[in-house]
Amino acid sequence: MVAAGETYPIDSKIPRADALGYWFKHGAHVCVAEADNTIVGSYTLHANQAAAGAHVANAAFIVAKEARGQGIGRAMGEHCLKEARRLGFRAMQFNFVVSTNESAVKLWQDLGMKIVGILPGAFQHPKRGYVDVYVMYQELLPANEANKR
Amino acid sequence: MVAAGETYPIDSKIPRADALGYWFKHGAHVCVAEADNTIVGSYTLHANQAAAGAHVANAAFIVAKEARGQGIGRAMGEHCLKEARRLGFRAMQFNFVVSTNESAVKLWQDLGMKIVGILPGAFQHPKRGYVDVYVMYQELLPANEANKR
Repeated sequence: MVAAGETYPIDSKIPRADALGYWFKHGAHVCVAEADNTIVGSYTLHANQAAAGAHVANAAFIVAKEARGQGIGRAMGEHCLKEARRLGFRAMQFNFVVSTNESAVKLWQDLGMKIVGILPGAFQHPKRGYVDVYVMYQELLPANEANKR
Repeated sequence: MVAAGETYPIDSKIPRADALGYWFKHGAHVCVAEADNTIVGSYTLHANQAAAGAHVANAAFIVAKEARGQGIGRAMGEHCLKEARRLGFRAMQFNFVVSTNESAVKLWQDLGMKIVGILPGAFQHPKRGYVDVYVMYQELLPANEANKR
């Protein structure tokens, strides 16, 4: 997926060790999706900022090419949001959703994420040139606290 | 400024070495502002993302407490935008401008930065509780290319 260069701002030739470092960064919660005893996807969940910004989570997702279209991304997204809430995060932020990745944008919107920012031309798509990037966000307050706001 | 905890999502007790690592990250262009042979401010300028996102710059600024209100932030902001353009960046993005930092928001708007995203409650202010954070952005296209769009 990274090699295709269409969805992540990551060097398509990133060394394996650096890729693992990116995914398993300090304090990250990493989960995998399994089907027929094979790993078909993974997500990494961690604080988006330190200190006074650490109550907002960030996550990244990957689904194996041959396992697309089976609802694996959705299952991981739902699990991730539940995990984030369980870990006490008050919000989930996606910093860099490439606008041309329409199935991802739609999926995240289905799961309650909202486009709260648009970065004009912030991603250089290998086929479409400079395309917009979305910042997506969702508050994850426990129900009793949400009522107080 | 970091110790005050009112503007940056950085641990107020960050060790000196980590703070220097944050400021002088790999590939960063760091400038200082001088007055009377004393450093009164600094900014760090670097790509906001890697690879297909590396044409967008990011920067962070700091002004010595005792040197505030003298236009040092503005001078550094103008210099930084000029430097970013000179280095070939096509846009400037600020990822995390705390909304209660009103003088900074106004200054960046004066310099052409626009609020392109709002992150609800993404910063825990030590006095005001959870406050919104802005994502600010500005395209830096050379004039001849901007006309073509």
